[in-house]
Parts: sequence; C-alpha cells; structure tokens
Amino acid sequence: MSKKEHKVIIIGAGLCGTLLGIRLAQKGYTVELYEKRNDLRKTTEEGGRSINLALSHRGLMALETAGMREEVLQYCIPMRGRMIHSIGQDSRFSSYSGREDEYINSVSRSGLNRTLLQKADTYDNLQVFFEHSCTSVDIENATATFQRPDGALVKIEGTVLIGTDGAGSVVRRAMMSRSSSLLFNFSQHFLRSGYKELTIPPAPGGGYRIDKNALHIWPRGAYMTIALPNLDGSFTVTMFHPYEGEAGFNTLDTWAKVKSFFEEQYPSLLPHLIGLEEDYFDNPVGTLGTIKCYPWQAYGKSLIMGDAAHAIVPFYGQGMNAAFEDVRIFMETLERHGEDWPATFTAFSEERPTNSDAIADLAIDNFYEMQDKVDDADFIKKRRLEMTLEDRFPDYYSKYSLVTFKPELSYAEAMVKGRRQDEFLLNLVADKEVDQLDLEEVLRGVQGV
Amino acid sequence: MSKKEHKVIIIGAGLCGTLLGIRLAQKGYTVELYEKRNDLRKTTEEGGRSINLALSHRGLMALETAGMREEVLQYCIPMRGRMIHSIGQDSRFSSYSGREDEYINSVSRSGLNRTLLQKADTYDNLQVFFEHSCTSVDIENATATFQRPDGALVKIEGTVLIGTDGAGSVVRRAMMSRSSSLLFNFSQHFLRSGYKELTIPPAPGGGYRIDKNALHIWPRGAYMTIALPNLDGSFTVTMFHPYEGEAGFNTLDTWAKVKSFFEEQYPSLLPHLIGLEEDYFDNPVGTLGTIKCYPWQAYGKSLIMGDAAHAIVPFYGQGMNAAFEDVRIFMETLERHGEDWPATFTAFSEERPTNSDAIADLAIDNFYEMQDKVDDADFIKKRRLEMTLEDRFPDYYSKYSLVTFKPELSYAEAMVKGRRQDEFLLNLVADKEVDQLDLEEVLRGVQGV
Repeated sequence: MSKKEHKVIIIGAGLCGTLLGIRLAQKGYTVELYEKRNDLRKTTEEGGRSINLALSHRGLMALETAGMREEVLQYCIPMRGRMIHSIGQDSRFSSYSGREDEYINSVSRSGLNRTLLQKADTYDNLQVFFEHSCTSVDIENATATFQRPDGALVKIEGTVLIGTDGAGSVVRRAMMSRSSSLLFNFSQHFLRSGYKELTIPPAPGGGYRIDKNALHIWPRGAYMTIALPNLDGSFTVTMFHPYEGEAGFNTLDTWAKVKSFFEEQYPSLLPHLIGLEEDYFDNPVGTLGTIKCYPWQAYGKSLIMGDAAHAIVPFYGQGMNAAFEDVRIFMETLERHGEDWPATFTAFSEERPTNSDAIADLAIDNFYEMQDKVDDADFIKKRRLEMTLEDRFPDYYSKYSLVTFKPELSYAEAMVKGRRQDEFLLNLVADKEVDQLDLEEVLRGVQGV
Repeated sequence: MSKKEHKVIIIGAGLCGTLLGIRLAQKGYTVELYEKRNDLRKTTEEGGRSINLALSHRGLMALETAGMREEVLQYCIPMRGRMIHSIGQDSRFSSYSGREDEYINSVSRSGLNRTLLQKADTYDNLQVFFEHSCTSVDIENATATFQRPDGALVKIEGTVLIGTDGAGSVVRRAMMSRSSSLLFNFSQHFLRSGYKELTIPPAPGGGYRIDKNALHIWPRGAYMTIALPNLDGSFTVTMFHPYEGEAGFNTLDTWAKVKSFFEEQYPSLLPHLIGLEEDYFDNPVGTLGTIKCYPWQAYGKSLIMGDAAHAIVPFYGQGMNAAFEDVRIFMETLERHGEDWPATFTAFSEERPTNSDAIADLAIDNFYEMQDKVDDADFIKKRRLEMTLEDRFPDYYSKYSLVTFKPELSYAEAMVKGRRQDEFLLNLVADKEVDQLDLEEVLRGVQGV
C-alpha cells in the first residue's frame, strides 16, 4: 500500500492539526483535515481571547521540519525578557537568557494559523474542510461523522483518525466514554484564578506605548497582569485574578470598583489602558485549566495530541510549543515505525505523556513564580546569577532556558534537571551575594546536581 | 418552613443513599429515594461482582446513629486478621489488632442493602421508587427527570438533590458538564490490574473449607487472590491480576492455561475452587479505579457523596465505610447549620474531600502491600511489633488500626500519623529483632513522630 492510500483524518484545523496535516502531506499521506469553525482567513474577528502567544525554540524546531521557520519569524516580535513593574518602583528588565540569540517571540495566534492554512493549501494530497462540525467519532474504526455547512451529515472513514480538536476534544470524549475498556486515566484541574483580556492600543501617531521587546508583568502576589506586543503597536493585556476575594473578578463588578482598583494596584498600567471600561465589561472571564490523560491512542486506529491530550495553563508560554513538539515527535515516531500506525500510536502514547505532564506542572509552578516570586529579593538574585552563568558559560542553561531554548532535552528531563539547579542556586544566594561567588565553582556545583 | 416541607431527592438507593434517606427521614425531612434497578428484595441474583464487603468501625458508627448497628452485626462474620498463604509455606495468621474487640466484618452487600431498605420502609416521610432511571438532572434547580417502569418520564423538583448513584454517577456527570462554571476538578485513574470473582463452596456436609474468621490472602508479588467468608459456608474469592503479562487475564485465556497456572501459583487454593473453570470463564474482569473530584456541591442545590464523589479501590476495605461516614459527617454538618442547605453543602464539600482523597491513596498503598509486602520479612516484623505494642498499650494504634478502628480520627489524620509511625517502625525493625526492643522506649519514639 502506498502512502497515498493511507487516509489520515484529522479533526481540528487549529495550530497543531494544521501543522500535523502539512507534515503528513509532505510525507505523501492522504490527509483530510476537518474544522468546525469557518475559514479564519475569511474573517477579521479575533474573538475576545488568547490572541497572541509566545513561540520559542521547541515550536520553531517543529516549524523548521515543515520548512516554515523563517516565514513565521517574519511576523514575530522578539521578547528578550520580562519587564517587571512592581508597585511604587521603577520597572526592571530581567533577561530570559544570557545568550543573544535566545528569546521568545510574540506571535498572533490567528496570523500563525492563517500562515499554516496557506501552506496546507499548497498540497494536493491535503484537503481542508471548514464548517464541518464533528458529531460523533467511532474511535475503533477511525470513522467520524460531520455536519456539513448545508446541515447534511457525512460519515468519513480513514486509515486512522487523529484528534487535534483542543481542550474540549470530541475524540478524547469518545475515548473517555470507553474508559473501562481503555483503562482511560483522565484529570482536569482548574486554577482558582481566571483571566480577562484587555488592550493597550498603539501610541498616538503609531509605535508602542511601552517597551516592545519584553513580556511585561505587573506582579501583585495573589494576582497579576501581563502584556505581550502585537505587530500593530498594540499590546494584548491579560489580567490573571482570582474569582473571589478583594481582587476577584466577582468582586470587581462595577466601573467605580474597577477604576479605583486599577488606580491603586496598577497605577503605571492604567494610563495605557485606553478602553479599560469597555474591555473589562465586554470581555469574558476565561478559566485556567490543566487536562492530563492516558493513553492517547485507542485500538491502533485513533490518537489525540496537542491541547486535546494535554491542555496546560499559559504561564510557561509553552502550550503551542508543546503541541508543535507533539507533531515533530509524532512524525519521528512514525518514521521509525515505517507505516505501522498501531506501533506508532502505541509508542507515541507511551513516550509523550510524561513530557506533557512535566510542562503542565512547570506551567503551574510559573503561575506562582510570575505573580508572586519575580519581585522577591532571593528570586531576583538567583535570576541574576543564572544570567551571569549563562553569559560566562555558553553551555550553562537555567531551568527556564532548558525548557524554552533547549529542545534537544525533553520537557521531563528539563524539569528534573532544572528543579535541581533551582534548588541549588536558591540555597546559594540565600547566604551570599552574587558578586562574592566564585563562578567556576558555582558552575561545577550546579552541574553536579 | 417545617422540616417536612423540605423535600430531599436522593438518586441511588444503594448502601449510601438508603442510609442517608433513613437519617434524613429520622430528622423529619421529606425524602424521595429513586433507584434505577428493581427492588433487590424481590430478586435472588447477586450479579457476578463485589458480593461481600468488610464493615468496620467507621461504618458501624454511622449505622449506630441510625440505630441499626446491632441488627447489622447479627449477620456479619468477624474477620480477626489476615490469613496469609505464601507459596510453599504453612499459612500464617496476622491479626488486625492487638485488642480483642477490634476486627472487621464480612457482610453481604445485598443483604445489608436489604436490611437498609426494610428500615427505610418504616418511615412515612421516606418513599423509595424502584425502576426509576434518571435520564437528566438540573443541578441548579434540584430537579431530576426519571423514566418510570411504564416508560413515562416524570420530572421531580426537590428542595435539594443528592446523588448517591455510584461511580458512574449521573449527578456527577451533570456537574462535569458545567466544568468551567463550577471549576469542577475531576480525576479518574485505573490500576493496570483488574479483578475476577470465583467461589469456594461450603464444605461437603456444611461448614467452611478454610478458616472462617480471617480474610485470606494468597500474595504473589505482582498479583494476588483473596477470600472473604459468607454466612452459608462459602467464600467469595477475588483474583486481582494484571491484564497483561504471564499472570494476566488476557494471557490466561484457555482452561489448560488457567489450570496449569493455578496448579503452580495457587496450589493450596485450587482444591477448594470446585467450580473454577465455570467461574473463571463466566465471570467478567472488573476494573479497579479511583475517582476524585471537587467540589461535591453545585449552586447550594445539588450534592454528591459516596462512590459518586469518591470511588476507591477495595484494598483497605473502606469503600462502604467511607460512604457511611459521609452520611454521618453530612448529618452532623446539617445539624450544625440548621436547615441552611447551601451552607451545609458548602461546608461538607470543603471539608470532606481531603478525607476521601486520603483513604483513596491509602487503598492504593494497600494494593501493593497486600500483593507484595505481607510476606516480606521486615514487614512481618513490623506487624509483629505493632501487635505487641497494641497488646501492651491499649492506647497505641497502628496505621491500620487508626484507619480501621479509630473513627474519631479523620482519614486524613489517620493517614498522616499512620505513615509517620510506619516509617519509624520500619526503620527500627530493619536493624533490630522485636524481642531486643524496649517497648516503653519504642512507644515513646513512635508517639513522638
């Protein structure tokens, strides 16, 4: 059977599904990609949520395998570090890396999705069907039923079926409905904080109102607000606040309360939030959840990946990167197993969840780090030491750098090594000033952990 | 509003739901108890699964609040310890406690359920509806729709609604379908072992073929079989084996293989398994799963408890005891909050899950202990020391005793204290023989952990 005779049904033409479709098409498989929404290239709306993302080395590495790295980088905005806006202090820049070429990139989710769909259109063996909502999935037979735009139901059978249909995945639900026979482990866990998107518009006459090349954080202990730059001079601003309590979304329910809260807690940010009242009351509060499950495959016929298999909170900027890495690892696994789909699915489902679990846990750690630790004295000293080490020793990678800039290492390896390093360095700076330290000795110590 | 005007809808007339109905009826509330199955008092079938259970102090304490303790104890069979059948050795008895009055009780699930239903029938303000299958639940309005035996749908609205409908709970699913607005955390985790029930029939001419007053274990490292006595002289035998591998249910798929496996691995048990071939091939393999969730209540109108909220694996013999304890704690909480259902539901949902999580984790620990540790030399020494301590010092409770015989302590407290004690004692016996120890000193040490 030639590769062309293998028909892969992919459900969900978001970032992960579209990249997967491209990669499979590049290898010669016949791919049908089904998406419930309409073609976002034909609309201008962004919705009110998650409109920019941080693209870093793991995502770029996967894009490179598709030959798309340079094209995507063209409309990325480098963010070289965190700009930390503590209350009553000057803002402080904390670099993400001691190396020049290591930074993360602010990129528009819809822009990136459009680029991927354009690329997808260039393959004859890859067809994309928009406005095809999946109504049921037969995971045992790689068969799915879709409602077409005209309302008619069509049943499609593939050689295999892959769900890249996000956190609310229909394919995962189909696996879940067979929990006992698949021994399907599943967990969903919500943070007791939610998020709301706001906007900093471009400066009058164009340009950026605040530093363009940073991820801005206003850390406030039990909550925070962040901002990422967009190409048009605006910033997408996201409040991460609890639902309840003084700073809670449920408490801040009138403009008078919101205004006075921002005056008190976000005085340096407030002047830039030109449309705050409208943004605040128009935009919904989103939830922040982690989903883990196992196995990711069923009967050697169906598989899930990306958010469908491992939705994570956004605080490590790794959600999209992890999904793209899924695609890279999956294609390597498929290569290794020839065209043996069951062997590929099983191997991928055995190997990959450890790594998505790791980045899920790291992302929750970073939630607390970003809102509470980034302006803590010991934490600042530790970061300064890490940057000094990275600057002096090009082979040294901090935990953040291992996760973000070192895709050769799996997330699980990066987590284990990075946590040990953190513990070692935090102990060190608790007793001593960074300038008093013998860097060579510190390097030997931290490499030995 | 008098208590009688509060209508409580309970879904599921199993052990937990029926006891809850009785307790609420005793307090004067109007209770409607809906059960999808038919009245088990009218049938003799047991199904092929979970037909006897271990009733211990927590369950008895809850039954006592309903005035049912003595009645239930009449048809219980005391199990004073584990009878351990290691391969190629004499069987060895290991007591559950150093105190005479502390033992667990083998009781028939259906027998106990019948007794509860009989009791339920004695209350005018408690009505039980059998063969009423719940088709949908409106958790926000304490309303449920049931399909009656004649096929008609009836919609019932209560003051509040409580789901005691087991691991597959319809009420929990309704909460899950509102995950984002309830921030509903949920996890299900399956062991990679399943279970199958077998039978040891009564001895020819009546009586028991093996010791009646023990829980029998044939521990084999990566798998085991256990047996609990029934009133009629039989034992319910349960194999806990992995699905895959040499001892796997999927491997042992012909009578020749099963027979030769039992001859080799369970030589002392095999002669008693008179109908093994039929039992083995007729009875299904059940799954062993843990379910945790939070919150247990929604909108102050709906609540779940028992297996619906916290299904656990059976290895601590605490599933039913935990469910009964839910009822006791819930009634105490309701008493404390007067007739304020939202306050009661919230308080119960905040307090109780920590304890059900604890017994869930302890039960998984015991899975490994029972199949792998009970014939380990250090473990045996530790148990011997624990029994000596309990015998000598009536106030001393081992971890097992804290969990099983000390309902004044919550499961979470018992877990924390018990685990520390275990660690202390295991370290002690690793170096020394029990006879060399100064017991007074050991007691001081273990009490100080």
